[in-house]
Amino acid sequence: MSTTVAQLAEINAALATDPVPTRRVTVPALESLLYQPLPVLDHGFLRVIDYMGGDEAVVQAARVSYGRGTRRVSEDAGLIRYLMRHRHSTPFEMCEIKFHVKLPIFVARQWIRHRTANVNEYSARYSVLDREFYLPKAEQLCAQATDNRQGRDATLAPAEAAWVLDLLRRDAETAYTHYEEMLNRREDGSDIDPQRAGLARELARINLSLNYYTQWYWKIDLHNLLHFLSLRADPHAQYEIRAYADVMLDVVARWVPLVFEAFRDYRLGGAHLSAMGLTVIRRLLAGEAVTQETSGLGGREWRELMAVLGRE
Amino acid sequence: MSTTVAQLAEINAALATDPVPTRRVTVPALESLLYQPLPVLDHGFLRVIDYMGGDEAVVQAARVSYGRGTRRVSEDAGLIRYLMRHRHSTPFEMCEIKFHVKLPIFVARQWIRHRTANVNEYSARYSVLDREFYLPKAEQLCAQATDNRQGRDATLAPAEAAWVLDLLRRDAETAYTHYEEMLNRREDGSDIDPQRAGLARELARINLSLNYYTQWYWKIDLHNLLHFLSLRADPHAQYEIRAYADVMLDVVARWVPLVFEAFRDYRLGGAHLSAMGLTVIRRLLAGEAVTQETSGLGGREWRELMAVLGRE
Amino acid sequence: MSTTVAQLAEINAALATDPVPTRRVTVPALESLLYQPLPVLDHGFLRVIDYMGGDEAVVQAARVSYGRGTRRVSEDAGLIRYLMRHRHSTPFEMCEIKFHVKLPIFVARQWIRHRTANVNEYSARYSVLDREFYLPKAEQLCAQATDNRQGRDATLAPAEAAWVLDLLRRDAETAYTHYEEMLNRREDGSDIDPQRAGLARELARINLSLNYYTQWYWKIDLHNLLHFLSLRADPHAQYEIRAYADVMLDVVARWVPLVFEAFRDYRLGGAHLSAMGLTVIRRLLAGEAVTQETSGLGGREWRELMAVLGRE
Amino acid sequence: MSTTVAQLAEINAALATDPVPTRRVTVPALESLLYQPLPVLDHGFLRVIDYMGGDEAVVQAARVSYGRGTRRVSEDAGLIRYLMRHRHSTPFEMCEIKFHVKLPIFVARQWIRHRTANVNEYSARYSVLDREFYLPKAEQLCAQATDNRQGRDATLAPAEAAWVLDLLRRDAETAYTHYEEMLNRREDGSDIDPQRAGLARELARINLSLNYYTQWYWKIDLHNLLHFLSLRADPHAQYEIRAYADVMLDVVARWVPLVFEAFRDYRLGGAHLSAMGLTVIRRLLAGEAVTQETSGLGGREWRELMAVLGRE
Repeated sequence: MSTTVAQLAEINAALATDPVPTRRVTVPALESLLYQPLPVLDHGFLRVIDYMGGDEAVVQAARVSYGRGTRRVSEDAGLIRYLMRHRHSTPFEMCEIKFHVKLPIFVARQWIRHRTANVNEYSARYSVLDREFYLPKAEQLCAQATDNRQGRDATLAPAEAAWVLDLLRRDAETAYTHYEEMLNRREDGSDIDPQRAGLARELARINLSLNYYTQWYWKIDLHNLLHFLSLRADPHAQYEIRAYADVMLDVVARWVPLVFEAFRDYRLGGAHLSAMGLTVIRRLLAGEAVTQETSGLGGREWRELMAVLGRE
Repeated sequence: MSTTVAQLAEINAALATDPVPTRRVTVPALESLLYQPLPVLDHGFLRVIDYMGGDEAVVQAARVSYGRGTRRVSEDAGLIRYLMRHRHSTPFEMCEIKFHVKLPIFVARQWIRHRTANVNEYSARYSVLDREFYLPKAEQLCAQATDNRQGRDATLAPAEAAWVLDLLRRDAETAYTHYEEMLNRREDGSDIDPQRAGLARELARINLSLNYYTQWYWKIDLHNLLHFLSLRADPHAQYEIRAYADVMLDVVARWVPLVFEAFRDYRLGGAHLSAMGLTVIRRLLAGEAVTQETSGLGGREWRELMAVLGRE
Repeated sequence: MSTTVAQLAEINAALATDPVPTRRVTVPALESLLYQPLPVLDHGFLRVIDYMGGDEAVVQAARVSYGRGTRRVSEDAGLIRYLMRHRHSTPFEMCEIKFHVKLPIFVARQWIRHRTANVNEYSARYSVLDREFYLPKAEQLCAQATDNRQGRDATLAPAEAAWVLDLLRRDAETAYTHYEEMLNRREDGSDIDPQRAGLARELARINLSLNYYTQWYWKIDLHNLLHFLSLRADPHAQYEIRAYADVMLDVVARWVPLVFEAFRDYRLGGAHLSAMGLTVIRRLLAGEAVTQETSGLGGREWRELMAVLGRE
Repeated sequence: MSTTVAQLAEINAALATDPVPTRRVTVPALESLLYQPLPVLDHGFLRVIDYMGGDEAVVQAARVSYGRGTRRVSEDAGLIRYLMRHRHSTPFEMCEIKFHVKLPIFVARQWIRHRTANVNEYSARYSVLDREFYLPKAEQLCAQATDNRQGRDATLAPAEAAWVLDLLRRDAETAYTHYEEMLNRREDGSDIDPQRAGLARELARINLSLNYYTQWYWKIDLHNLLHFLSLRADPHAQYEIRAYADVMLDVVARWVPLVFEAFRDYRLGGAHLSAMGLTVIRRLLAGEAVTQETSGLGGREWRELMAVLGRE
């Protein structure tokens, strides 16, 4: 039985479970999403498995910090926006969420760089991976960007794109076929050749390519999740990890709507300006006609500043 | 209004809240404890505010790691004991718990050394602390231990103990009276002398002693909580922090009974033996009459080994 | 012998040590500062005990990340400024520094909230603290700020200040005298009363106030040190911890001058603007006469924005 | 120019650098190893790039913790052994080491699970990987272990091994050839076909298999390094990561010889016994003929205990 089939059975069982009573902070808008696989890329998904707290847990923790003195702060939204604006991060650490994620290995390699989280990954030392690999959609096949040595530029011409996809598909298929042959194992678990021993799983897997899917449980607090999202839901992030970040943004909007709004207004939609950038703005506001040459900024910083000011 | 009175109102409100339905993992034995202040020391308490997961969340995460291959492992208790025995710590990180704790500052200073947790502490920069300080019970007033330069020895004679308690009480009372005078603030919040400005809170508090109570929200995953408990529920820990650890042990037993049993059998009740200690045991089992002199162990290590073997 | 006297001897010994050859990255400007106590507050100090790396270690790590492709990036300063501007934090983690710090306990309590560091603190369970406590200078004795419920306002009148200092001094002196009496121990280590047992150190210390000095070794990487400094060298930080942060800023300027300049330009001297703040600037630049009322910003956010734009 | 060639030039430059004077703690036995590539597996290496502290830094930090009271503890080795035996981990965090490591991606994926370290990895989004992949030696090609669902059993028969190696080599070569074709890039950096755009690096790399080599700078404190080594220099660790751990053990032995001896005696050579295991030993020492059946232990735990006691 493939992992996929086994998982579908488990997911259906979880979805069929009746609710039970709890006295914990509960967020109905997130409850309705629990356990459901939210599709990402061609074979991936993101499932919310559990959560702790909500907007009110952030407020509650902040009120302990500020003691009874702050009872007068008018309302929760205002307090949450104040915390976000002034980067008081500890109250946001009081909420926690746990995801089950299926993702290509090269995405997992970027993702795991965020160290302040808990992870349990499917182990190909113990178990056999499924024949599932990521193939980009043709419109995602772009040329190397030339301006910043990273990221993607224009989409490849259809013929080149088709040829690339064919290479990717054939190599991944071949790798998996050889993986099974080295394991001496058919998909149903039976031996291919009863006379052979079959290679250890921890070695056979090294033949698989980085677009093969793995999966893990990933648990993180809200502060660190927002930090992850500010980096990975950003246009500079690789498209494939951004696809997961975008789905998580929707989850956050349901889970902690007040925190999400503050995050959007102060972080996602904001910008950090340098001392030199602020000086340029002050000169512009004073009516001076500042150019890159008179600004003291390098070409790239000047362009970034003009973009932020909507003057491109 | 004192923090204490305000908190009682808040606690009663929380306790009166009706349960709501959830589809998350829920532990009825812990639900019945939620929000209740469990008393510790003379004015302290520990309250469970929230939790995520239970025994089954540990199993679920471990099963992802080991993949479908391990479906055959007979049962959850066996898997949890296996994980504990072989120090596979990541599945235990998948559970999380949040406490509200009221504790003396000197205990808070030991506690905070455990870095892998989230904390929001009541801030005496913003708010005024209550007139509440820790006074040990007479039977806890012990002489300095002479054997290990740390910890306590025999209880003080009643007269010396009474004299010590009187000193502690008087100094703490005086410090608080002067704290309020420097703040120019009566307990009801009114000015003592309308002509004076009153010292900033962040400065006035430096006059308070280390036995004054503070409080915080403290959130930690189960793996790190067990590590905390293995150090702080230990006889070498200072009595006052151990009092909190003992209450937390009871909470863990209710929350994750299978994990608790494994922790008790493999960690709390176990012992780590050195290479030299193992050699001594092998020689003893082979019938040799090993003494400290022939063991190659120092005096202290020998006594520790004999204690572990019940040969004191 | 008091800790202070013992430390002076140790410090002098360290300063007298002859240099030895190394092939590691070495920063002469920091070498000349090693081991020297840099005075902070009335009895505190900061000593640089060790360091790893320098500006070139940041560049080296960044060049691994970007591979051979980036060899063409013109020079180190430009690369470091690029990393700082785009918050590529991992190369800054490749440098490490270790301090020996003597600081009041209430400062230590704020400091320890930064969890991503290594700490060894002097333990008053094992040893006896010295009779050294912090007394603010009269000009630091300020009234409670009324605008933001935190921090300090105008300086107290001389008479009130003198009276406050007298209270602080007397209470601290009394607490220490009683501490020694409870320990049954004179400063020279002899018993006060040979008939008494003396209270355990871990208990007697709870009588000391939060302005008593403690000390620790504190080791941190450069990225986390800069984060610490961005919070603690800020005007909103309490004066006493800021005094330490300011000295550390000087250390950083000597140790990694290129990183320091980038930090000053992009972080210390910069500002984070919200989505709404950016909209206001765009409208102002378009010639619109925006007021707080038409800005959509709250009063406090508006004032903060005007301050950043130098329009107060 | 390939990364390998560029690195050789850089390594040779580093090795040719003259020593400079420092007043920091310096370890001559490690200095002589600095920058040299220590070979691991077929194309990998480990280089020590920098270090902070040594045995004496551990002692120094411990002495601050215990204050002047512990001056009497006889000598450094004894103190270090005491710290190791009682798991006082913070003094070991005061030493730091930085490695440059070249390693297969599947090894990097296990390695990165240790979160308490700093990492800068070569990025295949920015740069092109070299044509270097890991091929196991024939004697490392083992069958899947059947007893514990993990790890390796007997070596494959020569014919099966040769066939496996051929598959691994051919698939890796094909993947790389297609990688270059998708990039439209020859090894010398020129275009293969000037009419084609070439696929973005961040996408082309997903065709490479997990045995391709990557590299990173990895910095960690001594406490966490020992924890890493206790897990990865263990017979249960996969052979390929163990090959790196074994080389690091040698580095540790040179760097901090007293710490290394204590680690070997108390951790590597020691064993953790459960409460039930201790009971069995006590019964055996009392002369009772305990068997698995009468021990209360499961079959696997019994075998593990007998192995520890040398009674297999």
